[in-house]
Parts: sequence; C-alpha cells; structure tokens
Amino acid sequence: MQQQSSPTSATKRIGFIGLGSMGSQMARNLCARGFRVKGFDVRADARAVLEENGGTWAGSVRDVASDCDFLLLMVVNVVQAEQILFQSGALDALPATATVVLMATCPAAEVERIATQVAAKGRRFVDAPVSGGVAGAASAGLTIMAACDADTFGLARSVLEAMGDKVHHVGERAGQGALVKTINQLLCGVHLAAAGEAVALGAKAGIDPRILIDILSQSSASSWMLRDRGARMVASEPKVTSAIDIFVKDLGIVLDAGLRLRAPTPLASVAQQMFLAVSGQGSGQIDDSQVVRAYRAMTAESGGSEP
Amino acid sequence: MQQQSSPTSATKRIGFIGLGSMGSQMARNLCARGFRVKGFDVRADARAVLEENGGTWAGSVRDVASDCDFLLLMVVNVVQAEQILFQSGALDALPATATVVLMATCPAAEVERIATQVAAKGRRFVDAPVSGGVAGAASAGLTIMAACDADTFGLARSVLEAMGDKVHHVGERAGQGALVKTINQLLCGVHLAAAGEAVALGAKAGIDPRILIDILSQSSASSWMLRDRGARMVASEPKVTSAIDIFVKDLGIVLDAGLRLRAPTPLASVAQQMFLAVSGQGSGQIDDSQVVRAYRAMTAESGGSEP
Repeated sequence: MQQQSSPTSATKRIGFIGLGSMGSQMARNLCARGFRVKGFDVRADARAVLEENGGTWAGSVRDVASDCDFLLLMVVNVVQAEQILFQSGALDALPATATVVLMATCPAAEVERIATQVAAKGRRFVDAPVSGGVAGAASAGLTIMAACDADTFGLARSVLEAMGDKVHHVGERAGQGALVKTINQLLCGVHLAAAGEAVALGAKAGIDPRILIDILSQSSASSWMLRDRGARMVASEPKVTSAIDIFVKDLGIVLDAGLRLRAPTPLASVAQQMFLAVSGQGSGQIDDSQVVRAYRAMTAESGGSEP
Repeated sequence: MQQQSSPTSATKRIGFIGLGSMGSQMARNLCARGFRVKGFDVRADARAVLEENGGTWAGSVRDVASDCDFLLLMVVNVVQAEQILFQSGALDALPATATVVLMATCPAAEVERIATQVAAKGRRFVDAPVSGGVAGAASAGLTIMAACDADTFGLARSVLEAMGDKVHHVGERAGQGALVKTINQLLCGVHLAAAGEAVALGAKAGIDPRILIDILSQSSASSWMLRDRGARMVASEPKVTSAIDIFVKDLGIVLDAGLRLRAPTPLASVAQQMFLAVSGQGSGQIDDSQVVRAYRAMTAESGGSEP
C-alpha cells in the first residue's frame, strides 16, 4: 500500500512526540518521505538522532503542537498521552485544522475519552496503534490499525504510509483501532497459554517437550507465539523478552473490553488466570513463556505446604 | 531425514492394510523405495492402484499378515485395527519376528491396550500416527510420530522414512505417539475457538471481520488454523472441510487423556464447550470454522425462546 511521496508531502508539517526506540525510526521515515518533522521527547538525548535524520528539535510540547498539521503521539501509555494533550497544553496550542494521531497502545475506552475531548476542541483525531516492533518501525514496515472518519483517513493516509506498509482503516470510530490491538493480544495470550497446556500434558506422559514443540511448530497446531516462545518455554531460566505480568495486564484489557461491549471471552479469561497463577508464585517479572509453570505447579507432586 | 533406499530394502516385506486416499499413496512410496509390498483393503477397487504402483494384492488379512516383516495398519479407526489384528486373525498369522505398525489415529489409551495384546503374542509394536493429509502422503512428506523401544525404532526407521520426511521418535512407550497427535488437536481446537472469540469481540465493536482476520493473520496473533479457517469463518454457509462434531470428539479425546494422566487442560475444556454449543444448535455437521456461531449466539439480541 506504500506510495511514492506525494508532491504535497513537503507542505505537511509533522509534530512528533515520543522519540524512543520506535518513534525515532518512524520520524526518520517521515523525514525520508519529505515531511517536515519537528519533534520532542522528555529525554534530551533524542535530539541528536532526530537532527541527524533531518528533523528539527522543539523546545517544548507546545512548541511542537503550535507548528504542525499532524500531531503524532508515540508515547508509552495513555497517561503520557493525556498529560501532553491536556496538562501540557498541546491541544490548545494546535492550529484549528490540525489532526491528532494517537499511535501509543491504549485501552479502547480511554482512546474514546481522549477522542471526545479532542473533538470538543474542534480538532480531528486518528486512533492509530501499531504493531511490528522496532524492526517494523525501522523498515517502515509497521502494521497500522487506523480508526477515524473516512475524510480524516484520506488526509492522514500518506503520513501513515510513510511509517507502515500495512495501513488498515479498521473503522470510523475512535477506539476501534485500539480494540484491534487488544484483540491481537487476546490471541497472543491464549496461544501462549495453550502452548503451555500442550507441553505440560505431554510432559505428564513422558514426552520430551523439545521434540513436542519441534513437531507442533511445523504442523497445523502451530502459532506465531508457539514458534517464537517455544524454545524459551523449555529453558529453565530464559531471558525475559516480555514479562508474565504484561499478559496479566493485556488480558485484563481484553476482559475489560468484553465487559464494556457485553461480549464474553471465556478463553481469554482462562488464559489470564494461568498468567496470574505464575504471578502469584512471585514470578510476574519472568519471561512470559514460563506460563507453563502454572500447569506444572497444578500437578506438582510436592505441591501445597511442606510438612 | 530421508535417505536413499538401503541395500536391504528389497528384503523387507511390507504388509499394508488400509489402501484409502492416504494409504494407497504411502504404499506407492514404499514400492518406489524398493520395499516388497503386499496389500489388502475391504474395497476391492484398491487392487488396481496397488498393482499399478508395483505392489501385490492379497486375498485376505491373514494372507497379508503371514508374509511380512512389517504389518502397517492405515485404517479408519481403532475399531478396524482391533478387528484386523484380533478378530480376523492377523496377529496370529504374523511371523514371530514381525512388527505391527499402527498408523491410524487412535486414542492413546486404546493404543496402549492394543500394544499390550501384541506384546503378549511376542511381536514388536510401533505406535506411529501421521499428520500431513493426502498431500503429505503423496509427496512422502508426512510427519510421523513414532513411539516404541529404541531397537524397534531402529528396525522400522527406513520403512517410516519411505513415507515421511519428518520422522520423530517421540518416546519409548506405545501411546506416546497417539498422545502427540492428541496434543496437536488440543492446539488446533483452542486456536480455532480463540479465532471465533476474537472475531465475535471485534464484531460487537463494529469491526469488519474480514479486515480483522486479514490483520491478525499477518501478525503475532496468527495461527495455522486462523489462516486456514479465517475466510470460511466469515462466510455464511462455507463448504465443510471438517465438521464441528469432529472437534467435539477430538477435544473429548484430549480431555480423556488429561483425565487419565491427571493433567488439567482448562483451555481445551472451554474450547470443547464452544464446539459443543454449535452442535447443540443442531449444526454439528457444518464447517468447524462456524464455532464463531457459539459466540454470536451467546449475545444475540433475539436470543432465547421467541415470544
């Protein structure tokens, strides 16, 4: 879906807040496509990279916001996004025709609340979370799940396509993009817990988990999570790439979304319990592949209190 | 793991019972590797294909069994396997040094029972279910999950490698091969029900399921089942490739295995309930992708009895 930079790219001014490991790469790709990028981050060491990539450093959040057509937020969470827009004055400083593009991962309900406040000030809003990680950000290969009215999507499209090669217009209402990201986590969490269930069942029958994972990874039983986490699942103390407690939180966001929408999610509910069990063992900070320990603990012969 | 046919292939006599869509291809590959194949099937029209592929047709089950080093059973289910071995007299007719290779998909507990009876007669036994379907059978590309003692695996290996390119020795005890196949179905069933849960949650928020499946199929949320069944899940009356009731049965086999091994499988348990719900709607024979209907029905606004 990528296109060459349009003749008007140069006239579009991008304000970019949140120049971390992903944001700095996304800003670089925007510069490379001819957009005029002005950026800001609370970490001042982001300045040199931005300038090297062709962007301009701003003195403050208000400075970024007052001089842009699109204000992109690639911050850590919804608390930072609200801080920037409402407490630091970015929303008030925005030109009347500017568009806010929220790219951080946030719960759908909170995205809806932010969108309402942005609309009350007469500005456009795009709910546009991403997936693909640092590698996708670097290669302009992100998946971007954009939700906004069709007019606004038309305006923002070339901006989004400078950062991602899979830009989807998932719906007209803010929050729908965030929900697609939430649903992504539903499947990741269920697939990972199911892999633990499979390995633990095989182990009870004396089947070598390495052989089992090797077979399942190449069959109709395979999932992206099984292939990515399988080797770490059978290691005793694997490196932490993402912690157990992240899935306790992410599956909590799934369940909250189901509650709001009145949509039962029984598999996500059970999966969250398995991650929660490992967290309850005092191991919330270990690698999420260790969800298998919840299954092992349930049937450990020395389980319960020691005599 | 495939090797060229060994110098001794020609001296190995294969008895092959069950020359259906997969079995006939497997027998052809054995002939092509230089094994001497004598076959039988209750359907007499299997004869022409076998002879064309270089095999010899036998007059009966006993005729096959009395003249082989390896008796391969690629029948429909465990009932047929027991019929052949015990009622039709194949086991009694086998040479004393022959090996029974059970390749049909059977529950682990029943495989263990058959293995015990075969051992009581002093014959070797290999529990060796396959996956890969007709395509894998045709290309000698099957995955074969073999469980037997190491000596027997050494004897049977070249026979198995004539039919599959992923031949795994999953354990020393009969039943372990069957269990790996069962665990494969655990993940397939959970992944498919989870895909239904994801699509139904998105639909409640007004997200087009086709766009959602497109995104999820390319992300960390992907599974083999989602990619294979996704398009059929959003069709209203898809062609049946495998029925809802097959997963009710297969996940029942998973739960039975968990019961025997004292290994809880909570995700498989919930997944089975979702397939069972669709069966309870009177739709046990529709395509298994329609497990999504269990989720839709739960929240259908006209649900329950009509006024």
